[in-house]
Amino acid sequence: MNTLTEQTPAQLQARLQELENIYADYKSRQLSLDMSRGKPGADQLDLTVDLLTCVNEQEGFRAANGFETRNYGLVDGIPEVKALFADILGVTPDQVIVGGNSSLNMMFDYIASAYAKGVGGCTPWCKLDTVKFLCPAPGYDRHFAVTNHFGVDMIAVPMTAAGPDMDMVEELVQDPAVKGMWCVPMYSNPDGITYSDDTVRRLAKMQTAATDFRVMWDNAYCMHHLSDDQDVLLNVYDAAKEAGTQDRFVMFTSTSKISFPGAGVAAMAASPANIAEVKARMTVQTIGYDKINMLRHARFFKDIEGVKAHMRLHAAILRPKFAVVLEALAAHKLQEKGVATWHNPKGGYFVSVNVMAGCAKETVRLLKEAGVVMTGAGATYPYGNDPADSNIRIAPTFPALDELKTAMELFCVCAELAAVRKLLA
Amino acid sequence: MNTLTEQTPAQLQARLQELENIYADYKSRQLSLDMSRGKPGADQLDLTVDLLTCVNEQEGFRAANGFETRNYGLVDGIPEVKALFADILGVTPDQVIVGGNSSLNMMFDYIASAYAKGVGGCTPWCKLDTVKFLCPAPGYDRHFAVTNHFGVDMIAVPMTAAGPDMDMVEELVQDPAVKGMWCVPMYSNPDGITYSDDTVRRLAKMQTAATDFRVMWDNAYCMHHLSDDQDVLLNVYDAAKEAGTQDRFVMFTSTSKISFPGAGVAAMAASPANIAEVKARMTVQTIGYDKINMLRHARFFKDIEGVKAHMRLHAAILRPKFAVVLEALAAHKLQEKGVATWHNPKGGYFVSVNVMAGCAKETVRLLKEAGVVMTGAGATYPYGNDPADSNIRIAPTFPALDELKTAMELFCVCAELAAVRKLLA
Repeated sequence: MNTLTEQTPAQLQARLQELENIYADYKSRQLSLDMSRGKPGADQLDLTVDLLTCVNEQEGFRAANGFETRNYGLVDGIPEVKALFADILGVTPDQVIVGGNSSLNMMFDYIASAYAKGVGGCTPWCKLDTVKFLCPAPGYDRHFAVTNHFGVDMIAVPMTAAGPDMDMVEELVQDPAVKGMWCVPMYSNPDGITYSDDTVRRLAKMQTAATDFRVMWDNAYCMHHLSDDQDVLLNVYDAAKEAGTQDRFVMFTSTSKISFPGAGVAAMAASPANIAEVKARMTVQTIGYDKINMLRHARFFKDIEGVKAHMRLHAAILRPKFAVVLEALAAHKLQEKGVATWHNPKGGYFVSVNVMAGCAKETVRLLKEAGVVMTGAGATYPYGNDPADSNIRIAPTFPALDELKTAMELFCVCAELAAVRKLLA
Repeated sequence: MNTLTEQTPAQLQARLQELENIYADYKSRQLSLDMSRGKPGADQLDLTVDLLTCVNEQEGFRAANGFETRNYGLVDGIPEVKALFADILGVTPDQVIVGGNSSLNMMFDYIASAYAKGVGGCTPWCKLDTVKFLCPAPGYDRHFAVTNHFGVDMIAVPMTAAGPDMDMVEELVQDPAVKGMWCVPMYSNPDGITYSDDTVRRLAKMQTAATDFRVMWDNAYCMHHLSDDQDVLLNVYDAAKEAGTQDRFVMFTSTSKISFPGAGVAAMAASPANIAEVKARMTVQTIGYDKINMLRHARFFKDIEGVKAHMRLHAAILRPKFAVVLEALAAHKLQEKGVATWHNPKGGYFVSVNVMAGCAKETVRLLKEAGVVMTGAGATYPYGNDPADSNIRIAPTFPALDELKTAMELFCVCAELAAVRKLLA
């Protein structure tokens, strides 16, 4: 099959007419579908309903250490949940702080504290003229929104199949104004890429000009495999210990897409020095997070094996949805036509599609006009600026399967339509 | 009866010997009691256990507006809980943001944002040489810890029976570096004083040099009456509207001592301009707080009348405890002896005792040595510095009634012993 660029104007014109007709037909159906947000579907939420009532009068309200979860205290969380997150993040329980319902909030707080008070005894960012942060892109828009909120200069670093372009990272961190980096190291948002061992080791080993350089290691999807064919992420803290850079990595995760988005439990993990610094701030910030909700999670999941078993239930629901996305892209031969490329993720919450350069915004616009809401084109880049106007994040988890099928058919039509129009313009 | 200061050295010496004997007797009993923290007792926690299971599969998971509380969304909370807090704080629901489990955390976030980004479009505090904050004292140590964390100069303002000394406040706010003020306007921590209507009106009306002056109106105890003989607090937002100073007041409260400390729901309320500013920050900070826990509270309490009825159950448990404290102080004639003064609160969580000047630390030390832990002397003042070394905060809610009786007997002995020793020194 020829790519679109190899076709004659007459061939393109004919294809344009076909696509316009198909698109007009979709538009007449007055769809109203949403593929914009990485949120679980209702059937996934139902998997965890027993969690909500497992802390009750019969079962009691005490943590494993006898602590009454209904009263004040334990700023860093109940022991059994610290232990659970330690296993999930590959650290020891004393390195863990269990938070509230949002790992994003814990990340915001960490950056806010770096801005106001500094980290590792270094100058607070607010006292510096310039602070820069590396942003592997495409990435998570809400990460970029946090650093943007604090006036940080964000530098996009291209993602490769092995993670962020490490040659570029190693060069950029020679600038002492570069204070850190966002990472979603496993099943990255949106690409679904897991950093290679080499990438993780280079992140741990590299020399940074800033002594307070921090990697915001958002391991949001570390339990979110789609099947038993799983990626494996190197333990970054072990690599950092080997390199003597333990203080560089601040790890985050949550059960938002394990139990409930908004009613799950978040956690962070880091070196003893970093944890001591964060706890000192937290004792000013709060008397403690919701220990009853921690206890619910401890009782429902029991341990990491319980989480793994539960995630297989999620995967069974999600596999067909990811399949619909990938099958539609393949069936429409978008790669062969030169209309789009994508990565086939083994986990996470997204499929990231790179449409023909200059066509992402138009594709999203066409979809919206026909009633299908996508994540805004460009949202996956710092400042919302995708220089190639190419990346579109597809979130297949929330829509029902038949709706997703319709939306993906339309997606493929719109991506090709935008490409053909562009070539004819 | 004569005060101690009117007694002869011989009389004092005789009394000293009596008190030393009583104290030695208590010490030999090896007590281990805690009157340090304003936390509910176990019987209070039991009042709300049905709240924990009222969101379940049978009852469903949807808010009044049909919103699925188990998924992402609604950054400012579910409508029925916004309405509940609006009634509690005397504002309209659109002025309310429902938060996580901690109003202290919401206050920290507000101050942190003033520091990093500024409020009302004014210069961020971090860009100013000096920021000062008024701290009515005695007050809440955790308020002072927040402003101290951000390097704010804290100015103690004496509390009167009508609230903070308003002559002093009105003078101090002429300094443009004075950016705000902490207030616990009802059943204040620790005095249990409710601001008079005149105090509230003067706070609303006063001219402040700083245009971004903010009153952190922590209405933590607005529902926490001890009986039907209740204080009444003027609606500060109405007073502010009348004076055209709506943006001055940022109100906070929570259900921490209504449902569960650490697993309750917190809220803030403010002017539309302030709420818009906070929401803009919150959309960067989090995807939303725990809506399932909000729904639990909405279902369990239903409305403000439900909260009021529930608070009567708390009051029935707390009244005897406050009575024990006040009866012990009266029975030992500490006021007549010139050993201590106190306020008889109609609500809240504390009894604040002012022992003889220079005797608070020693009284707390004597208690500790005999096995009774109190809030540290001085903790109720900015920088932990009570210039008169006089104020001690008694938290009678957590100990069992018989333990409390013992602890209060010992308290009275220690307060008088410290005073007699001082007079003889």
